[in-house]
Amino acid sequence: MNRFTLVLHCPNVIGIVYQVSRFLFERGANITESAQYDDEESDRFFMRVAFTVDSANETSESLSSAFASIAKDLHMESSFYSDSTKTRVLLLASQWTHCLADLLHRHSSGELEVEIVGVASNHLGDAQRLAREYGIPFEHLDTKNIDKPAIEEHLLAIMRDRQVGLTVLARYMQILSEHLCLNSPCPIINIHHSFLPGFKGARPYHQAFARGVKIVGATAHYVTADLDEGPIIEQDVARVNHAMDAKGMMEIGRDLEKSVLARAVKLHVRHRVLPNGPRTVVFA
Amino acid sequence: MNRFTLVLHCPNVIGIVYQVSRFLFERGANITESAQYDDEESDRFFMRVAFTVDSANETSESLSSAFASIAKDLHMESSFYSDSTKTRVLLLASQWTHCLADLLHRHSSGELEVEIVGVASNHLGDAQRLAREYGIPFEHLDTKNIDKPAIEEHLLAIMRDRQVGLTVLARYMQILSEHLCLNSPCPIINIHHSFLPGFKGARPYHQAFARGVKIVGATAHYVTADLDEGPIIEQDVARVNHAMDAKGMMEIGRDLEKSVLARAVKLHVRHRVLPNGPRTVVFA
Amino acid sequence: MNRFTLVLHCPNVIGIVYQVSRFLFERGANITESAQYDDEESDRFFMRVAFTVDSANETSESLSSAFASIAKDLHMESSFYSDSTKTRVLLLASQWTHCLADLLHRHSSGELEVEIVGVASNHLGDAQRLAREYGIPFEHLDTKNIDKPAIEEHLLAIMRDRQVGLTVLARYMQILSEHLCLNSPCPIINIHHSFLPGFKGARPYHQAFARGVKIVGATAHYVTADLDEGPIIEQDVARVNHAMDAKGMMEIGRDLEKSVLARAVKLHVRHRVLPNGPRTVVFA
Amino acid sequence: MNRFTLVLHCPNVIGIVYQVSRFLFERGANITESAQYDDEESDRFFMRVAFTVDSANETSESLSSAFASIAKDLHMESSFYSDSTKTRVLLLASQWTHCLADLLHRHSSGELEVEIVGVASNHLGDAQRLAREYGIPFEHLDTKNIDKPAIEEHLLAIMRDRQVGLTVLARYMQILSEHLCLNSPCPIINIHHSFLPGFKGARPYHQAFARGVKIVGATAHYVTADLDEGPIIEQDVARVNHAMDAKGMMEIGRDLEKSVLARAVKLHVRHRVLPNGPRTVVFA
Repeated sequence: MNRFTLVLHCPNVIGIVYQVSRFLFERGANITESAQYDDEESDRFFMRVAFTVDSANETSESLSSAFASIAKDLHMESSFYSDSTKTRVLLLASQWTHCLADLLHRHSSGELEVEIVGVASNHLGDAQRLAREYGIPFEHLDTKNIDKPAIEEHLLAIMRDRQVGLTVLARYMQILSEHLCLNSPCPIINIHHSFLPGFKGARPYHQAFARGVKIVGATAHYVTADLDEGPIIEQDVARVNHAMDAKGMMEIGRDLEKSVLARAVKLHVRHRVLPNGPRTVVFA
Repeated sequence: MNRFTLVLHCPNVIGIVYQVSRFLFERGANITESAQYDDEESDRFFMRVAFTVDSANETSESLSSAFASIAKDLHMESSFYSDSTKTRVLLLASQWTHCLADLLHRHSSGELEVEIVGVASNHLGDAQRLAREYGIPFEHLDTKNIDKPAIEEHLLAIMRDRQVGLTVLARYMQILSEHLCLNSPCPIINIHHSFLPGFKGARPYHQAFARGVKIVGATAHYVTADLDEGPIIEQDVARVNHAMDAKGMMEIGRDLEKSVLARAVKLHVRHRVLPNGPRTVVFA
Repeated sequence: MNRFTLVLHCPNVIGIVYQVSRFLFERGANITESAQYDDEESDRFFMRVAFTVDSANETSESLSSAFASIAKDLHMESSFYSDSTKTRVLLLASQWTHCLADLLHRHSSGELEVEIVGVASNHLGDAQRLAREYGIPFEHLDTKNIDKPAIEEHLLAIMRDRQVGLTVLARYMQILSEHLCLNSPCPIINIHHSFLPGFKGARPYHQAFARGVKIVGATAHYVTADLDEGPIIEQDVARVNHAMDAKGMMEIGRDLEKSVLARAVKLHVRHRVLPNGPRTVVFA
Repeated sequence: MNRFTLVLHCPNVIGIVYQVSRFLFERGANITESAQYDDEESDRFFMRVAFTVDSANETSESLSSAFASIAKDLHMESSFYSDSTKTRVLLLASQWTHCLADLLHRHSSGELEVEIVGVASNHLGDAQRLAREYGIPFEHLDTKNIDKPAIEEHLLAIMRDRQVGLTVLARYMQILSEHLCLNSPCPIINIHHSFLPGFKGARPYHQAFARGVKIVGATAHYVTADLDEGPIIEQDVARVNHAMDAKGMMEIGRDLEKSVLARAVKLHVRHRVLPNGPRTVVFA
């Protein structure tokens, strides 16, 4: 039994679910999960269908090919994914390695079903040690001695050469240039250590302390050329109080960052996040 | 444009979504929301579909009638609901009226789209005053002078006479007999002031204080003859600490009770809650 | 037995707790609750002490007078409050009355220990009806026919004449002028329907929807001349998703607004909130 | 400057704070944080005071000795702790190592200020690998080949020999005997993977799924001979839904377990948790 996921979006018209379900019925597929969303603002329709087929010959390519005429008729953007193909992930980190350690442990315990093809960091030390422990190739991004364009070309080359399907900024503290954002061959997920849109930019815990908020948060979002403005995938918050300075908030915040980033990565690689302009549709 | 909701469950086989979506497509319906769930344990399939039809002649009866053969073939239990038919609700309360006041205000502000056909209470005072203010018929359940079987026959008569579609125990502090539970013509939702299954029975905040928990909760569930064991619809929690005695927990808990009960009632009357043995499927 | 609360702040030096506790010990007071905070940034010390005294002659005035020399020596700002003196509260509302209804019901049920001396609204209808039901004097702020300076003079007169100790903006949708903020004889608490500092200004739920956040919030803060920038007292949040438009967020948000505002008012009138520049110290 | 913490509890009488603050004032101590709680039920008083002293000669022993007469007069149990003395911690794990990995990473990053003196597990594999990576001595508890009394004697010997101040059951899946509980030279903290008192005993996620709860939780508590009944230190919860089976709940729950256990350990080693019969006083 093979498991697949179909993800699609298209202009909203009557009969889309009928067309999709007829197609799957005629291929002998058993729908195991389905979710849809009509965006009334843009009049677009979003759908995610998980299904199983008994035939060992069915592949995401054979399904795509058979579905092509329906997709064309309905002006769909659609993709079939086989559950047996794992997303190839590149992890980037800096001096704070709690998110990196967390993702690596989740991966090694079988919770995070991806293939981690590399860890890169502008800091040696913890990141390198963690990569070695978990047997992942490590790349040093020597931002002190090499200029940013060269570092970013190196990163793009890694993404292309290792066929990276998702890059995760696990508290990578370098701002990516517009050039890299536009030329990345894969989506990039970042964890921002605030409850966006509050406290954009640098040192958000210090901003949160200065403003005297009673709750802090973390936000996982896709990276776009517009810093801290990319579509949000997941957020979470935790309560703080007056007695907590920026350092105390950081300690609380690290737990949020770990779990929010891990949830966002899992949602993405399970094809549960669909882009919708500046927002996301998340079929959780 | 008329809005309807179809809710169904049946043994899981291939093609259910296809049959349903073909039926709706052929009736000219536009699906606006759809959710489904395969219970792998019981091998049953649950579905909720919201849709619009342009024809003014279509009714929930005409839809049911046309759908009957599909429902029969697939051994479905299915119901069509028109959005223009509001659920008729009976509210029961006792001395604590925060949930009653909350539901009445939500109703009067248009948030709770039901028809409230009565308020009944074993306490005069606040409940009666609230009913009068909001112009709802009030019934006194004089549990001090009338025995329980007679009170319950009176309640059943109200439910039948006013064609009640949902009874809500808004902190009604009398235990319903098995007889009433089995003979009620409509579902009954209760709010229990603990995070079930912890602290069943009486005085849950006192139990919570005695155990020293750090979080208290509230649980909305369908009433069954098995006290505090009915299928759970919604729960929520709030943090407490050692300095909070049972009275302090009650104050915190009242806010939970109000919002959890209101959410459960809204989920129910929007046909988002499907029974699944001792559990519920909630298409939120 | 009389209950009092002492609230103070002063420059941090060694021996403050000793001086305060010696004073209370020598007056025969029994400390029932105590909390303190050293702000290392400003080097100021904040303290709240609740205590009981057996003597029926002791008053907040007699305590203040006896404490004066200690307060002077330590350059303290200090206040003694008797639990038997309830804060006199003025409630302002507009067309959305869920917060007003909630505060009035909490008050009538004994949960909110204040004296409500008036309800004022720029909308007739619900606010007026609620005031009448709960027997509170109602004032119409006729913003359509009377200009803002005159309305605000009227408000200031009400505050002074009724000796208002706290004004609560229970979703009052008019911006207060700098003049009113600076001349108010009492603190003013506002509930903003967003998780500040995100989504300041108008229509925060529409802003939240446009940004695609996964969590919305509400913020209770003191009003200052700087709109939406006053010291935050309390915040809370709730999860939303892509399928929720601004209207759906509003429905979720109303529950947050009610409970966050009520918690802030209770914290304030229990003398648990101390100003600390742009922030607050909250001894919860 | 030396940092100390004084923790005490005693029968409630007038003047305790005065006596303590006078003692500290006379020793030249600067109080940096103070919290107290009167348990009205037991009429006991609990207090935690953090303070600094300039003298390099002051030690927890010298303070205890000087404080002895006050402690005796007031029938106190009191302890002084120096911040420079780290708690010696023993970690126990089984096949699920997410809590172990989490605690080890927190420790290596400087967040968890303890000395980890050993990792012991009844499973080789992950636990052993993690211990080696972080350079911590590993002990195999060979429960398959050695009987329980012998295993427990070995554990008790480790605790004594390494002067363990706290043992942490980081998802250690063996039930400790009453003998071990009563003879342990140090407190033992366990993480239970449910929101106690709901779902005691084995397989709580399976119990939670069967009951159809909408929220799952985790509970950190001190171990007593009475299984799952020890005083609760910390709890947290997360939302689940009908589509989540026990396996899905486990995945959600692992994040809770990690953060709840870490918070409990940090509270304990910072001397913020005081025993109060079946409950705890937590000065967070």
